[in-house]
Amino acid sequence: MKRIYNFSAGPAVLPEAVLQTAAAEMMDYHGSGMSVMEMSHRSKIYESILEQAKADLKQLMNIPDNYTILFLQGGGHLQFAMVPMNLMKNRVGDYIVTGQWAKRAYEEAKLFGTANKIASSEDKGFSYIPDLTNLPISPNADYVHICDNNTIFGTKYHQYPDTHGKVLVADMSSCILSEPVDVSKFGLIYAGAQKNIGPAGTLIVIIRNDLITNDVLPGTPTMLKYSTHAENNSMYNTPPTYGIYICGLVFKWLLAQGGLDAMKAYNVKKAAVIYDYLDQSKLFKGNVVKKDRSLMNVTFVTGNKELDELFVKEAKTAGFDNLQGHRSVGGMRASIYNAMPIEGVQALVDFMKSFEAKHVG
Amino acid sequence: MKRIYNFSAGPAVLPEAVLQTAAAEMMDYHGSGMSVMEMSHRSKIYESILEQAKADLKQLMNIPDNYTILFLQGGGHLQFAMVPMNLMKNRVGDYIVTGQWAKRAYEEAKLFGTANKIASSEDKGFSYIPDLTNLPISPNADYVHICDNNTIFGTKYHQYPDTHGKVLVADMSSCILSEPVDVSKFGLIYAGAQKNIGPAGTLIVIIRNDLITNDVLPGTPTMLKYSTHAENNSMYNTPPTYGIYICGLVFKWLLAQGGLDAMKAYNVKKAAVIYDYLDQSKLFKGNVVKKDRSLMNVTFVTGNKELDELFVKEAKTAGFDNLQGHRSVGGMRASIYNAMPIEGVQALVDFMKSFEAKHVG
Repeated sequence: MKRIYNFSAGPAVLPEAVLQTAAAEMMDYHGSGMSVMEMSHRSKIYESILEQAKADLKQLMNIPDNYTILFLQGGGHLQFAMVPMNLMKNRVGDYIVTGQWAKRAYEEAKLFGTANKIASSEDKGFSYIPDLTNLPISPNADYVHICDNNTIFGTKYHQYPDTHGKVLVADMSSCILSEPVDVSKFGLIYAGAQKNIGPAGTLIVIIRNDLITNDVLPGTPTMLKYSTHAENNSMYNTPPTYGIYICGLVFKWLLAQGGLDAMKAYNVKKAAVIYDYLDQSKLFKGNVVKKDRSLMNVTFVTGNKELDELFVKEAKTAGFDNLQGHRSVGGMRASIYNAMPIEGVQALVDFMKSFEAKHVG
Repeated sequence: MKRIYNFSAGPAVLPEAVLQTAAAEMMDYHGSGMSVMEMSHRSKIYESILEQAKADLKQLMNIPDNYTILFLQGGGHLQFAMVPMNLMKNRVGDYIVTGQWAKRAYEEAKLFGTANKIASSEDKGFSYIPDLTNLPISPNADYVHICDNNTIFGTKYHQYPDTHGKVLVADMSSCILSEPVDVSKFGLIYAGAQKNIGPAGTLIVIIRNDLITNDVLPGTPTMLKYSTHAENNSMYNTPPTYGIYICGLVFKWLLAQGGLDAMKAYNVKKAAVIYDYLDQSKLFKGNVVKKDRSLMNVTFVTGNKELDELFVKEAKTAGFDNLQGHRSVGGMRASIYNAMPIEGVQALVDFMKSFEAKHVG
């Protein structure tokens, strides 16, 4: 069995211990005589998997009692529509545009009402988080939407905007569970599982209960109402049962690591290994302004397209996969989610040093 | 390792060989050094998994070249909305209501236009397929919707309605791949994977290309347009990558069994084991009219609620799980999808015989 260092931005590396458990339980989960994949979602044994996953996520994120956890499908992209369809009472949403997915969310909202771009970092290739002081929050905004960590560009909010009391909605797909978050600041948090939690096809919503209503936009499909899923404990229809099971294994693994305070300490230390190297390298340089750096997605370039491609190719041969930047921006990106061990980042930096030595006189 | 006979209606039993492959490949797929769950959906190795799955499904179902295969999320329930949102040009859909999910599809369509119930079997507890001669197809109907196999009640269309040239749309969630189908008769076929294919959270759409348009109802989310997914080869956003992989393993397994002609022969023989017993039992009796019986879901009762419950309980102890009927109807249901071996059905019938001997003097 070979295991490589996988720097994919998502779907992404999972904890080896989680995969080992999944493999061991594939034919017979806890003496049930079946795989979790084969279980009726209405069976007691499956319900206990779902309930445990919810309880562990609640503990990990310290989610207040007036919030509901939902396991949904369709990824962040479906949330780009569900958020306005459910929350736009005045048909007005304010958006801060800090990357490609934040922009997609903003564009999608226009299908349903007025979407106001109240700040953007597109002028400099999304290489920073905009100044959050004195944001022109719309007086009638139903919510303010942000993308907390920008996977493609490698930026992260290290403080959150003052929304003047408006509901704050955050896409946390690529940073959820990487560090503690004060959930009470948000009305709604959503995150696709496929970056920092589990398999693609499972999405987590954490929504404040007063925002779950049947007062949605006309023509909203039943499946796109948060109330449908909240009233049925994510079981209105068959949920992505196996995905939720893997998410649950990851939650247990995170608790065993010491929870999100411990993960943050580890992630800060881990990211420093590569950022510290980038800051003194004569070949590689980071793409984004220092204060807005992501702990999860580290983007960098040599400044020479051919050399970037050579690096990605040689790195792959050396056992470091998926280091190419997103197809829309090029360069390199090392995604170093929770499940990437610090040894992987250290090994990558050692490889970068030897590449630099070969190519810088 | 224990394996029981799992008669769940979905998520349901999967071929043991498929689960063994999945377990063996969990840590390292084909020397890639990663699990399929960890692969970037944009990587060459994952693209080959998707393309192979599509090619194998096309071969299995003999899908004509003018159809497109999509792997989506959200289950049948999201299709209940996507079908009208995409196909209702005149805002009129005709529905044949043969069960709970067919009825949900019909009710959901009312959110988007006029849904006409052109036939129903609700008068007799959905225990038959309505007479299909002289259906009152609406002159301006955009399509006619059926649910091919009714999981909860155990009925199946053994011929399809004459739609007077209107587009025929079928939910085949619980019968897809159980027997050959003439795909060219349909404009759109959809099927949740979790009954006869793979894990919950993956849905297959087979759509005739002329029905893929951008001319959808106003306010249709981008993710709910078939064109979005068709134009991006099911990769507009991250698809349910691991689910598609398991579906692909099931397709390969079906090809190795001899394809759908062989599966039909096996399924007919397998269903006969239990139906023939029911037809002569003094205790158990089948719920539905003989000519409309499903090959996949066999529903039956003793006529005594307490005895039904005792049977389900004792059967579970004996290693036959998930035999209770759907919570909306009670009684018993044995779902005997492709992956249920005939030995399982024979063992169940042997158990039913001994139960009958104990309870019928």
